Amino acid sequence: MKLAQRMERLGTETAFAVSAEAAGHAARGNKVYPFHLGDMNIRTPDNVIAAAKSAIDMGKTGYCPNYGIPELRKALAEDINKSRGTDFTMENVAIQPGGKPVISKFILALMNQGDEVLYPSPGYPIYESQIEFHGGVAVPYTFTEGKEGFNLDMEAIEELISAKTRILILNNLQNPTGAESSHEELEALASIVRKHDLQVLCDEAYFDIRYEGESESLVSFPGMKERCVLLYTFSKRFAMTGWRLGAAIGPRDLIDAMAELSVNDESCSNHFIQYGALEGLKGDQEGPREILRILKERRDVAVEILNRIEGIRCYKPQATFYLFPNVTDVMEALDYGDYTAFRTDILHRTGVSFCTRFHFGRALHGEEQKYIRLAYSGIGVGEITEGLTKLKDCIEGRLHPDR
Amino acid sequence: MKLAQRMERLGTETAFAVSAEAAGHAARGNKVYPFHLGDMNIRTPDNVIAAAKSAIDMGKTGYCPNYGIPELRKALAEDINKSRGTDFTMENVAIQPGGKPVISKFILALMNQGDEVLYPSPGYPIYESQIEFHGGVAVPYTFTEGKEGFNLDMEAIEELISAKTRILILNNLQNPTGAESSHEELEALASIVRKHDLQVLCDEAYFDIRYEGESESLVSFPGMKERCVLLYTFSKRFAMTGWRLGAAIGPRDLIDAMAELSVNDESCSNHFIQYGALEGLKGDQEGPREILRILKERRDVAVEILNRIEGIRCYKPQATFYLFPNVTDVMEALDYGDYTAFRTDILHRTGVSFCTRFHFGRALHGEEQKYIRLAYSGIGVGEITEGLTKLKDCIEGRLHPDR
Repeated sequence: MKLAQRMERLGTETAFAVSAEAAGHAARGNKVYPFHLGDMNIRTPDNVIAAAKSAIDMGKTGYCPNYGIPELRKALAEDINKSRGTDFTMENVAIQPGGKPVISKFILALMNQGDEVLYPSPGYPIYESQIEFHGGVAVPYTFTEGKEGFNLDMEAIEELISAKTRILILNNLQNPTGAESSHEELEALASIVRKHDLQVLCDEAYFDIRYEGESESLVSFPGMKERCVLLYTFSKRFAMTGWRLGAAIGPRDLIDAMAELSVNDESCSNHFIQYGALEGLKGDQEGPREILRILKERRDVAVEILNRIEGIRCYKPQATFYLFPNVTDVMEALDYGDYTAFRTDILHRTGVSFCTRFHFGRALHGEEQKYIRLAYSGIGVGEITEGLTKLKDCIEGRLHPDR
Repeated sequence: MKLAQRMERLGTETAFAVSAEAAGHAARGNKVYPFHLGDMNIRTPDNVIAAAKSAIDMGKTGYCPNYGIPELRKALAEDINKSRGTDFTMENVAIQPGGKPVISKFILALMNQGDEVLYPSPGYPIYESQIEFHGGVAVPYTFTEGKEGFNLDMEAIEELISAKTRILILNNLQNPTGAESSHEELEALASIVRKHDLQVLCDEAYFDIRYEGESESLVSFPGMKERCVLLYTFSKRFAMTGWRLGAAIGPRDLIDAMAELSVNDESCSNHFIQYGALEGLKGDQEGPREILRILKERRDVAVEILNRIEGIRCYKPQATFYLFPNVTDVMEALDYGDYTAFRTDILHRTGVSFCTRFHFGRALHGEEQKYIRLAYSGIGVGEITEGLTKLKDCIEGRLHPDR
């Protein structure tokens, strides 16, 4: 069959190729340390599971409203209001079959052909793909590495804005960098958004995956509630990645439009799972706390070992389950020509499997520093220690073959 | 927020307004007989539920492949091969979060801007909506009422084909008419498809909801396997409407493209539910048989009463759970100006709630006969009898006020 022309513009998550290579390496009898996965090897909290099963038994197996069940929309609005200081009601919430569907529905509902859309690169590769697939112009902005993490360059962002710029995609608490904006940075962003009359997709998938301090959202700043749509997901906070449940929260007219897209695309999200998610929000919070305890221990161990490896530096994010170490020095010292050579050689030598900056959107002009991304959501502390120690020994053994 | 221009072209399921009116009537203390619902009030088979719950317990709560789990793809290919005489393998199957997502993904993957797409009207309103939303030209074809059901007019269909026609949407075993094509009709359609080099979406959501005889698919005819994509859903056969699971089955290059759209739109379908569906296909078949027994009894009762009402005639479909009685005579005799007047007056007088032809795509030029659609998937035999008897008494009382 001859595919439609737009399919040539569709991107993908190239990280799946990394998974396939890791699986191939394991199939040949090798031990693999899976730092490439964005998935979680942590159990969904028991009370969430019990509530979903009970909803099946109560016959919640037919269609539900395309916006989601009212109880969950109400509970989610309250949850968001508590953490973001907003005053949303259930009318501002459209339940979705995951966080990801919010990206395509937001773009379909707001972006016209030829509109320019600012998005982060490195960043989740689906932004770039969906913008271009639906006929927009993808305009990447980037981060600069500071002493304690990655920062946005407001002047650089403002220079990218043209008369055709209508949309900004912001992923505060970011995949892949783990970066988050300071209060001052968000304030400056809000000012740019107001000045240029932009509409914003706030991808806050990792808002609640936080180990110290408090997460902050752009929507909490003046004039932002009318301009921001929050991408919410139950995937990370409740270890529910494979359940597929999320939501869009934002201005009512846009939420109505996105719910109309749900009528067209999938009728509704799964019915009984919404009762599980409701229990997650309203019930005992020991489950989410335990998930954070597990992840924090992994982060601490991984960052500590990474920073002891010669030629690698890694700042310690307070949120997300990603690390984005700078490997410029080690790649140069060991004469790796590109990311793929580095990644595959390390996989074959040590079994340590990770993604690189290459998997998170097109590189920007003049980008010189080299980064890899390690996820610790799908690998336990024992394997983190073992794998990263092998990585350390391998790299340092090659840097100093005569030691 | 200013919505994108394409949102002006997005349609909806106007039948939701009927649900809302019925709910309003009930809230005012009236008895409602819900013939408007496409949902099912039948329990999902116990073995399907048990398998899904067990998969949760086994930790099938993380992401699964975007194509779906291999076991289910394989089982579904075998199931389709058995009933359609095809030779699909798992590579021809992409699991989807429902049957409906197959419509949008098929259109996105194949239809270019300006392409003409043939679709049935009356028909599922989402075809018309998705075609126009994504920039195509929706070209409706219709049915003619024969002695034993509704037929396609091959000459009329062929006259609609232009140089820009690339796609045909076929919903054999049809919503709303309950119509199905004879072997000869499918043969003629296959010939048209080959002659004009069309690509076909075969929406076979009701293929297994069949009371007598055997369902037949266009894909079984020569040259069709390369041109057809089957829309499959677990929703009706296993009473799983609210679980949201379906699949696209077709040529491998197109299935790959649709799976790539899944990567972009929703990552994957729910993981553990796929084990429930696998049990549905491979396990004990008493559940689906019981569903058919329940539906057949409802059909028989409803058709019998409808045909005893003066001014109404209703043929008896052998499949689907819809009836599409001709109400031209009664609307004329009782002087109803339009569908909405008829529908709402009947609701208020009797509590019988149904959709009309109006809810299933734009009317065609010169369309004179009047039809309503009754679904019996969400209403038991007792209420069917009570409701349709009230309808009979109401209509005949008004036709003959002096009796």
